[in-house]
Order: sequence, then structure tokens, then C-alpha cells
Amino acid sequence: MHLRVVLVEPEHDGNVGSVARLMKNFDFDELWVVNPQTPLGDEAAAFASHAKNLVQSAVRVDVLDEALKDVSLAAGTTSILPKRTANVLRTAVTPEEFTRIVGPIKGTVALLLGRESKGLTNLELEECDLVVSIPTAYHYRALNVASAAGIVLYELWKSQHGSRRLYIEEADRASRRRLVEMFDSLCEEALILPYKRRLAVRAFLNVLSRAPASSRETSLLLGVVRQSIQRLKGEF
Amino acid sequence: MHLRVVLVEPEHDGNVGSVARLMKNFDFDELWVVNPQTPLGDEAAAFASHAKNLVQSAVRVDVLDEALKDVSLAAGTTSILPKRTANVLRTAVTPEEFTRIVGPIKGTVALLLGRESKGLTNLELEECDLVVSIPTAYHYRALNVASAAGIVLYELWKSQHGSRRLYIEEADRASRRRLVEMFDSLCEEALILPYKRRLAVRAFLNVLSRAPASSRETSLLLGVVRQSIQRLKGEF
Repeated sequence: MHLRVVLVEPEHDGNVGSVARLMKNFDFDELWVVNPQTPLGDEAAAFASHAKNLVQSAVRVDVLDEALKDVSLAAGTTSILPKRTANVLRTAVTPEEFTRIVGPIKGTVALLLGRESKGLTNLELEECDLVVSIPTAYHYRALNVASAAGIVLYELWKSQHGSRRLYIEEADRASRRRLVEMFDSLCEEALILPYKRRLAVRAFLNVLSRAPASSRETSLLLGVVRQSIQRLKGEF
Repeated sequence: MHLRVVLVEPEHDGNVGSVARLMKNFDFDELWVVNPQTPLGDEAAAFASHAKNLVQSAVRVDVLDEALKDVSLAAGTTSILPKRTANVLRTAVTPEEFTRIVGPIKGTVALLLGRESKGLTNLELEECDLVVSIPTAYHYRALNVASAAGIVLYELWKSQHGSRRLYIEEADRASRRRLVEMFDSLCEEALILPYKRRLAVRAFLNVLSRAPASSRETSLLLGVVRQSIQRLKGEF
């Protein structure tokens, strides 16, 4: 699936820049702008930060149709919930459903984001194959356009790269158990009463398992416990 | 769980306003600002849109400690990945893991977002119980502070309210089957060849099931198919 972000008549440079930055954050690079109401100048570049090139390479077209000519699927975004389930036009999917639907698509998927003041019109939504809406509190549904873009692009990133933990190399069960056994020995050397000791050992295991602790964290703790035992035994 | 959003030395009014707006979008209302480097004036109000009241009611404090005095857990955000898994300070969880960890907490959870220019310092992260990092492309990790806030608040909203589809009342299997039977009758009346007819009926069922169609959509389609049959039969 290849994504094309289509901003329809954006009114503020800052938002165009913010969307470009988010696209780079989540590794998308094709930005189209339909009839912009803003110059796409210095302010867009400032908000884009390290994604200025995406603003510069944005494809500008006069009408929406041009941006949708060659796409496999066009998805419009809206914050306006249908008042009745009978409203077929605004029968929207969540960003997560959107990612599941478009994930297997080979061609280009266009994600349309509307003007800051009033979003996409009914006519524009009718051009779309699918309508996406982000779940929010009912009392304030309208997200800023860049906020909406960020959430949908984040969900797409997750669906493509998984939401696995990136930064923690989990300790295996054996090293967790070894640490807990050492902790038990420490309790013994520290003359903790047996019933307290059993509870404390279980508490320590609970915390390690629930966290769960990384292998680095486990080995750092192991070092402390081991050395404490050695000191208690008067080994140095 | 009660959430407190803590902006640490924000540098731009627009971002404070954007974070306030996102908080209202996702139904959080407690904003603290530590030593702001920006006036929190008209521009913050403009970006806050219908959440101006959150900017006005923001609690201002001089040092981070004051914002963390009474919390159950403080979570810092960072885009800076540890270079080695041995880095214990920046061993971060994803926003999804964050929501799972803080969901069962009864007290206040503080979510810290750093300055636009350089995020949270190591000292500030050391004050935190937990570090959260949003998965992004490696070539451009740094999200705008409001974008980061939006994604974490969105995940919290989902974890609290479910990510069920909000807008579609799914058709039950019986009404989908009724529609498909009618479509089969239409094929018959339209003199579609039998082998084509079987394939077309299956294709139609596939599309309806894979979508899946809502009850309103199904009944609208049923109306068309039924009336087409009647017309073909010359009933009116």
C-alpha cells in the first residue's frame, strides 16, 4: 500500500508544515495539496522542521478530482458523526479499521484531510470510497487537521511495523528466577523472618514479572543482590 | 485513573493551545505548565479553540517537583532512543503499553511533555517512574510536542472507551443472506447464465461480508434489488 496524503484547501501554512513533519515521522512521502488558501511559504517550512522537502515537493492541483485520478481507494476524514444510523454518507470507520482495510491494497490510497474551518464537504465525501472518523469525546469532536493526520499516520505505522516493544529486551524467565533466588538468599542472610521472607520473595517476583523487567535491568539488580550477600557474609 | 498533562518549559504558545484542544477532544482536563517560556496568551487561546478554558485554568508552577508531589506515577516522553539496550534511563514503553500500565491506577498519573527544542532532560526523566516513546521512522524520530500529546491521549481514550466501531450498526447474517437471495433472483430475471450467476452471487456475498455492510446499507440495497426484479417481471 502506498499512501498519498491530500490536503483539501488548507487555510494555514502551519498545518501544512505540521502534516509534512508527521508524514516524515511515520515514513510517508507523497503530499498533494488541492487549491491551497495559504502560500505554503516560510511558516509551512518552519512547522515542517526536517520535512521541508515534503512541502517543497508537494503536488499542487486545482481540483480534488486531479488528486484522485489514479488511486485505488480514496478515504475522507470527518469529525461529524451522523445523527442517525440511516446516514449512509457519514458511515465512518475508525483509524484502526481503516488500516485493516487498506493494508492489503497494492495501489495508492489517498487520505483526504479537509479545510481547518469546515472540514470536507458532503460533495467531497461523496467522492471518497470510505470515510474515516477518529473516536473522541462527544462534547468536542473536531480535531485540528494535523492532530487528525498524526493519529491516522501513527495507526498506519503501527499496522505496518507492529506495535511491539522497541526498546526493551525482556529478561527470560530463567534470569528472572535466578534473581529471585538470589533475593531469597539475601533475605536469609539479612535474617528476615521466614513468613516475611516468603511474602517478600513473592512480592519481588510479582514486580519483576508484571513490569516486565528487561535483561539489563535484571542483571543490574542481580549484581546488587549478589554483592549484598557477599558483604553480609563478610566475604569482603 | 486521573490524568495530569504536564508541559515542561513550553516555548511556543501555539503548542500549549494545541495540547489543550487535544485534551478536550479526548476528555482530559488537568493541565499543568512548568516554568513556561511563552506568555500563554492570545496565540495559545487561538490554537486551543474551544478549549481556551483549559489554558486559562492551567496550573503554573516554577519547578517540576511541584507538579509531581501528589501523583501516583509520573511518565516522561522522549523521542531519543537508547543507543544500547544497556541504557536503563531511556528504556521506554510504547503508548499502548503505557495505557495498559496506568489503566488500573486509582490515583493521578502525570504525563510529562518536554520543551520543543530539546524535550525532557536526563534529570527530568530520572524524576519519572516510567518513560514513554512513540514508535516512528528511525530517520526522523522527533515528533512535535502536540503531535506526541495527541497520540498518547488518543491511545488513552481508546483504552478507556474501546476501539469498537462507533458509527456502523452491522447488518445481521440473516439480512445479508436475504439480500443475496434477492440478488440471485435478480440474476435469474435478468437472464444471467447459470455459471456466471453462481459466481456473481458469491462475489456479491463476498463484498457484503468483507465490508461488512451496515443494516441500513443492506436494506437500501435490498430495496433496489427487489424493485428491479419487480420491474423485470413487469409488475409496474
